[in-house]
Amino acid sequence: MSADNKPRVGSVKQITSHSNPIVKEIKGLVAQRKHRTQSGLFVAEGLKLATDALEAGWQVRYLAIGPEARENPIAQKAAATAKARGALILEVNTAVLSAMTRKDNPQMVVGVYEQKMGDISDVIPEMSTTWVALDRVRDPGNLGTVIRTVDAVGASGVILVGDCTDPFAVETVRATMGSLFHVPLVKVGKEAFRDLAKSWPGTVAATHLKGSVDYRVPKYSEPVLLVMGNEQQGLDDETASVCKTLIRIPQVGQADSLNLAVATGIALYEVRRDHLSLEE
Amino acid sequence: MSADNKPRVGSVKQITSHSNPIVKEIKGLVAQRKHRTQSGLFVAEGLKLATDALEAGWQVRYLAIGPEARENPIAQKAAATAKARGALILEVNTAVLSAMTRKDNPQMVVGVYEQKMGDISDVIPEMSTTWVALDRVRDPGNLGTVIRTVDAVGASGVILVGDCTDPFAVETVRATMGSLFHVPLVKVGKEAFRDLAKSWPGTVAATHLKGSVDYRVPKYSEPVLLVMGNEQQGLDDETASVCKTLIRIPQVGQADSLNLAVATGIALYEVRRDHLSLEE
Repeated sequence: MSADNKPRVGSVKQITSHSNPIVKEIKGLVAQRKHRTQSGLFVAEGLKLATDALEAGWQVRYLAIGPEARENPIAQKAAATAKARGALILEVNTAVLSAMTRKDNPQMVVGVYEQKMGDISDVIPEMSTTWVALDRVRDPGNLGTVIRTVDAVGASGVILVGDCTDPFAVETVRATMGSLFHVPLVKVGKEAFRDLAKSWPGTVAATHLKGSVDYRVPKYSEPVLLVMGNEQQGLDDETASVCKTLIRIPQVGQADSLNLAVATGIALYEVRRDHLSLEE
Repeated sequence: MSADNKPRVGSVKQITSHSNPIVKEIKGLVAQRKHRTQSGLFVAEGLKLATDALEAGWQVRYLAIGPEARENPIAQKAAATAKARGALILEVNTAVLSAMTRKDNPQMVVGVYEQKMGDISDVIPEMSTTWVALDRVRDPGNLGTVIRTVDAVGASGVILVGDCTDPFAVETVRATMGSLFHVPLVKVGKEAFRDLAKSWPGTVAATHLKGSVDYRVPKYSEPVLLVMGNEQQGLDDETASVCKTLIRIPQVGQADSLNLAVATGIALYEVRRDHLSLEE
């Protein structure tokens, strides 16, 4: 797109053509990690996620709004807020939403947001915090679900160690159910992570098949660093060796292991046990 | 296929054509619930699942084996066992496996098995048992993951209440990681389920947003019936009204709810707490 016909930010544009360059750009963000990485943008579907993103102060690049949503007061408010912050509002039909998201029944609101990713300096082991580290997590659904659980237990954030699945993939964002906009994410290499674990002031607990301690036994001294291994291979030995407490979630039956997101949920509810109660 | 060229059961057949009727049949089972329901068959990918199915005595209709797997002693043994039980062994190339499963990198073994589904008479509320009831579960990954967790905690089975996602869909089977072959599944209508819950001799506990009891508080008297609601709507009021113990898993943060499979895992580890320990 030349500078001449580049739409102004903070404006509204009608799009009806699937071959519009912005539609193509959004399709690229949905389809390929490389487009997300190069642009630093990502796509989140749905009005609920748009509202979450705006409330949490995330930067919106585009907000595409389908015909039904244009009648909806919450969507109108989201569009006004996004526009005021410099987003381009795209008024589109259902076919264009479908093309953007490659879905037959697309959500009526699709947002494009700027990624946020912290580094190791953002991991501050303050008292009463719990950080979850995921070692080479592969499955987008698992990562998204862990982010959602981290939000639900009031943990501080997720540390992505080594080569992980993209937290900004559409499937991951969808599985977070909006918690992506509330949970800090940090990316670290495995060497840097081991240094962090070695100098961690509280409990560093890792679930491990060789773990000899029932996960319900340790006193988790805060701050807690909970380390979870890759879906297929678990935690590598070198990383396991810097985790002082190797825990195991007992199992009977014939399952080889628990799903990673389930195991993380069970461990987190134990670690955060004293922080969680029903308010009256 | 006419009776004349119908392959004999307990035999081996080479297939190289994508338009072979058996390849088309398997594609249909992968793609559409209606084909699975009409035939009572389903597809499970991978040698691990084939081994699980055979060990657990499930009936195999076809076992398709790719070139690499034909060199593998475990796959050879699985094929021999399946053949002895009357399965047709399909020797196929990678392209045919790919076509069958609609995947670029297919597993080298793909099995077609006969479905097993119990009814309400199979739910026997014996002492020390825990049954999990899922009310209108929608997501295949969630259902598969719950089946995997039920296996891991040694619960008795999963009751599918009302209109649920297909437990024999490829994504569900994949998410069970083989536990599908070990965990009894039972299908019941919502009225019959309410009668079951009313006459249940032990604790009937349901997670519910209106639940006022922290899930860690009740004494779960065995047998336990743990009831989990639909992903979007939770449990309907009428079903909730027959569950004597409405529990809630506490949450802080800004997540609206936990993922269904995570919530089920957390609740199950609490309900089965006394049954689970690390063997020395």
